[in-house]
Amino acid sequence: MKLDKMVGDRFKERPSDCIVDSHAFMVRGGYMKYVANGIYSQYPVLKRVTTKIENIIREEMDSIDGQEVLFPVVMPQSLWEESGRYQSIGSEMLRAKDRSGAGIVLGMTHEEAAVHLVRESANTYTKYPFMIYQFQTKFRDEARPRAGLIRVREFTMKDAYSFHTSMEDLENYYQICYDSYHRIFAKAGVPDVISVKSDSGMMGGSVSHEYMLLTPIGEDTIAICSECDYRANMEAAENIIINDDKSAMEELVKVHTPGYKTIEEVSGFLKKDITQTCKAVVYQKNLTDEYVIVFMRGDMELNETKLRNFLGEEIHAAEITLESGLVAGYMGPVGLDAKCTVLYDSSLKGTKNLVCGANEDEYHYTGFNVDRDVKDIEYYDFAKITEGGICPCCGKKSITISRGIEVGNIFQLGTKYTKSMNMQYTDQNGQLQYPIMGCYGIGVGRLAASVCEAKHDDYGPIWPITIAPWEVHICCLRSDDAEVKKVSDDLYDRLQKSGVDVIYDDRKGVRPGAMFADADLLGCPVRVVVSPKNLKENLCEISTRDKSIQKKVAVEDTFDEVLAIIKQLKDEIMSKVK
Amino acid sequence: MKLDKMVGDRFKERPSDCIVDSHAFMVRGGYMKYVANGIYSQYPVLKRVTTKIENIIREEMDSIDGQEVLFPVVMPQSLWEESGRYQSIGSEMLRAKDRSGAGIVLGMTHEEAAVHLVRESANTYTKYPFMIYQFQTKFRDEARPRAGLIRVREFTMKDAYSFHTSMEDLENYYQICYDSYHRIFAKAGVPDVISVKSDSGMMGGSVSHEYMLLTPIGEDTIAICSECDYRANMEAAENIIINDDKSAMEELVKVHTPGYKTIEEVSGFLKKDITQTCKAVVYQKNLTDEYVIVFMRGDMELNETKLRNFLGEEIHAAEITLESGLVAGYMGPVGLDAKCTVLYDSSLKGTKNLVCGANEDEYHYTGFNVDRDVKDIEYYDFAKITEGGICPCCGKKSITISRGIEVGNIFQLGTKYTKSMNMQYTDQNGQLQYPIMGCYGIGVGRLAASVCEAKHDDYGPIWPITIAPWEVHICCLRSDDAEVKKVSDDLYDRLQKSGVDVIYDDRKGVRPGAMFADADLLGCPVRVVVSPKNLKENLCEISTRDKSIQKKVAVEDTFDEVLAIIKQLKDEIMSKVK
Repeated sequence: MKLDKMVGDRFKERPSDCIVDSHAFMVRGGYMKYVANGIYSQYPVLKRVTTKIENIIREEMDSIDGQEVLFPVVMPQSLWEESGRYQSIGSEMLRAKDRSGAGIVLGMTHEEAAVHLVRESANTYTKYPFMIYQFQTKFRDEARPRAGLIRVREFTMKDAYSFHTSMEDLENYYQICYDSYHRIFAKAGVPDVISVKSDSGMMGGSVSHEYMLLTPIGEDTIAICSECDYRANMEAAENIIINDDKSAMEELVKVHTPGYKTIEEVSGFLKKDITQTCKAVVYQKNLTDEYVIVFMRGDMELNETKLRNFLGEEIHAAEITLESGLVAGYMGPVGLDAKCTVLYDSSLKGTKNLVCGANEDEYHYTGFNVDRDVKDIEYYDFAKITEGGICPCCGKKSITISRGIEVGNIFQLGTKYTKSMNMQYTDQNGQLQYPIMGCYGIGVGRLAASVCEAKHDDYGPIWPITIAPWEVHICCLRSDDAEVKKVSDDLYDRLQKSGVDVIYDDRKGVRPGAMFADADLLGCPVRVVVSPKNLKENLCEISTRDKSIQKKVAVEDTFDEVLAIIKQLKDEIMSKVK
Repeated sequence: MKLDKMVGDRFKERPSDCIVDSHAFMVRGGYMKYVANGIYSQYPVLKRVTTKIENIIREEMDSIDGQEVLFPVVMPQSLWEESGRYQSIGSEMLRAKDRSGAGIVLGMTHEEAAVHLVRESANTYTKYPFMIYQFQTKFRDEARPRAGLIRVREFTMKDAYSFHTSMEDLENYYQICYDSYHRIFAKAGVPDVISVKSDSGMMGGSVSHEYMLLTPIGEDTIAICSECDYRANMEAAENIIINDDKSAMEELVKVHTPGYKTIEEVSGFLKKDITQTCKAVVYQKNLTDEYVIVFMRGDMELNETKLRNFLGEEIHAAEITLESGLVAGYMGPVGLDAKCTVLYDSSLKGTKNLVCGANEDEYHYTGFNVDRDVKDIEYYDFAKITEGGICPCCGKKSITISRGIEVGNIFQLGTKYTKSMNMQYTDQNGQLQYPIMGCYGIGVGRLAASVCEAKHDDYGPIWPITIAPWEVHICCLRSDDAEVKKVSDDLYDRLQKSGVDVIYDDRKGVRPGAMFADADLLGCPVRVVVSPKNLKENLCEISTRDKSIQKKVAVEDTFDEVLAIIKQLKDEIMSKVK
């Protein structure tokens, strides 16, 4: 393809609304165009990248016996009512009425459609296991789309659904898919993507993993053990606190703490370490506005997802009214007189002699001993794991906290959808059973942006050759010079005829600096520069986008050398695919 | 791929709701599943067919310098307001509100998105011409989806948009695209698709063509000249009537025609041929309810699209009220006293001594001579062309009327969208100009269904090898027979390794008849049957789905023979690609 007619402009200035580099480069490089909040059109450059990513994913899905299907974007409301998700999913799901007044939704995922497609035909155990997958447009009406293609409202997703007759079979296939995902990311040039245990959220099911590309701009926070293999999303990482205070229990004493409301103020005033305090974190249930109070050690932070999953319903930060019976700033477990759900975080287990609120304006207790002062306590895990915390796997204080972008996820769904949608098969004994499902997703555009985030310099993306828009970028520095033009044209023709993806910049009157800046933004791995100066010595300049190769070769050797470098770059990537 | 684990069932009974054969076969063959009215999921078989069609189209679009892009499915209302189509398109466009209350629409076509993508960057004449295209899901909220994939609400469409700086350049590219479309249909195995002149409808613009696959189940009616190349959609075909009555003008005489209201009743009563009458066809404008009366020769039928295009607005059949001043059954051009738009169809031109209504209950006129009795008449073409009518091109009475499915369309849009959306470029003289657009569409699923409609027998589709789900179908008639299984397995392996698409039926305990019925429904062009009976003579059976080849070959020659037949079938198709 020739650059001069390519649709989409490149420019120098970083747009002020681009917070992350991948977004800035994709706007500056003519990859994408804003259409509406979280909705973009793809220019040819980006489309070429996403097509290559799709082909890598398709190849892997086919190799693990996936069958490609296609579900609709628009689905009837009734289908989502069957699974119960029409009710349980909030405003991220776009709902509308068609011309007949029937309720429709835009697909944000396709579990319901997958069960609908196979529930009659997969009626006997002999048809199992199987996996179906698709590439399809999804729409999630996110409240806060951000960071370009990292979090959008409309996106193309590969979603796969497997069906099994036993947990063992699901687990076996889950592992196959788990490995396949690592191969996909390695083939896309990011072998360092890690898998972490995750919270299943609205998908249901138990075991699930997210694939994370670690980067400071990631939206997800991940706990990683530096001593063992443990890795988990913050929402799924158990926080372990060992309190081994050997001192004797003090008496519970009410003390006057005028104006000292926050845990920091109170502990300062009473000269206690913050770990010697018990704080209250208050939410309300969305449906009923009922209060939910979680008591936890003063130095802990609550993880809302953990609480939400425990309650099984949506919550919001509490607004504490006079009628509630709650005393803002002075809540404590002893003498709490209000209608609410009271929960205890594991961080309180084994504590002694804490400071806590006395449920009375301007008063706290000292000497609070939870097992003595409150009866029949059950502890649950609601707190965030922290840097240097205890690894739930090896027990060492070796947790580090990193940020990452979720580039894929896999779920063991179990029978959530097959039961609710009444999909059954006859087993070997003639009994009706519900099949067990797994599901497996990858967002194509987000993966493209994530690779860009992981692989770029100050001037643009450094695309891995497997997903680069073109493999080779030829810069013809003086296309008005007949010889330069001829050498460039010949190379372009020969490479194209050999099946190499080439972008050819033979624009007239464009400065070399501008040409190189454009080439940097397009980020193609191999660059060939043909210039009058080098041609005088019968040379062409070949370099890689990451500058690891920069050499001049004889004109007649250029073609072979380019092919050799392409092979080398591909081999490097494939050497990391396990 | 092995048939036993393939998702999607095949069955024998024709579903009662399938009116057309392609729909019936695609349901019976496990190609598609109903999700909602006009919305289907695609099983692997159909997905394989549509993917192959997409690849044929992509190859052609790339060969005429198309650049693949991707526009969103969900677009902001404001984008469609810019072109005016948010207002002008009716309930086929699905409108909704997102979580922030902003109006959104689902894309039914992407002219607006195309202009939006390029309007800033294509700002100088040097960037022209260019063409961009995409494959994307479209949603049209059709009132009456029908015939399976022929008319649906959700579908994948290839839509292309070209931009030019002169009409000449557009016309030149339009011709290139016109030829490319013929190649696409030929490559898909239906070289007999014809192009016809069409009405541009809601797309705007002037010249446009539809590509029609002629079939009795088609929704479109096409006028074809048997003497010359003229072909046009009924809506675009000019109706030519030559009245050469040499008799003298009679006097206008009012006659009593009690109870004779319809044109047939009146002409019968007055013993006049129906061509000797003038009838009134009455509509009302949707916006104002203003009456529109078209007078035409009694034997003509009005084409509503012609009238709609002439008026430039929507119309509906009239409800004639007492207050209107119109006398139902007795309307005529003379003495018409009502506020309405009055139009004359060309079929009245040159008529003499007609019967027409007298605008008085139970009275008609005889001896009506339109040019004498009504002043300053302009005639327009509102009537349907009929079988045996005059060809607008060669002038012979050689029009035949056929039915067809529209499998593609191309439009010369002109500046409708660039003007309304204010897209401009600087020309060679430094002047601002509006680029001229063309657009080019093909519905992928409809093309699949149309090919099936054109190519099937009583037992299933006969897929052209270029778009067949698989090239070869192997039936292993007794997989419990070790030798049969081994010969089948070996052939399957060798063909797969040679890059041939193979579906392999080695199901145990399935009768040969059931296997063959399934193979007929899958419609793969080459079939190999391995059976104990033939193996005794060291033979395999090879046949084509259309039965043109049926032979037995030695086991050791089977592989080569299959490859030779595949090549032959491909060559046959490519020989018709011009």
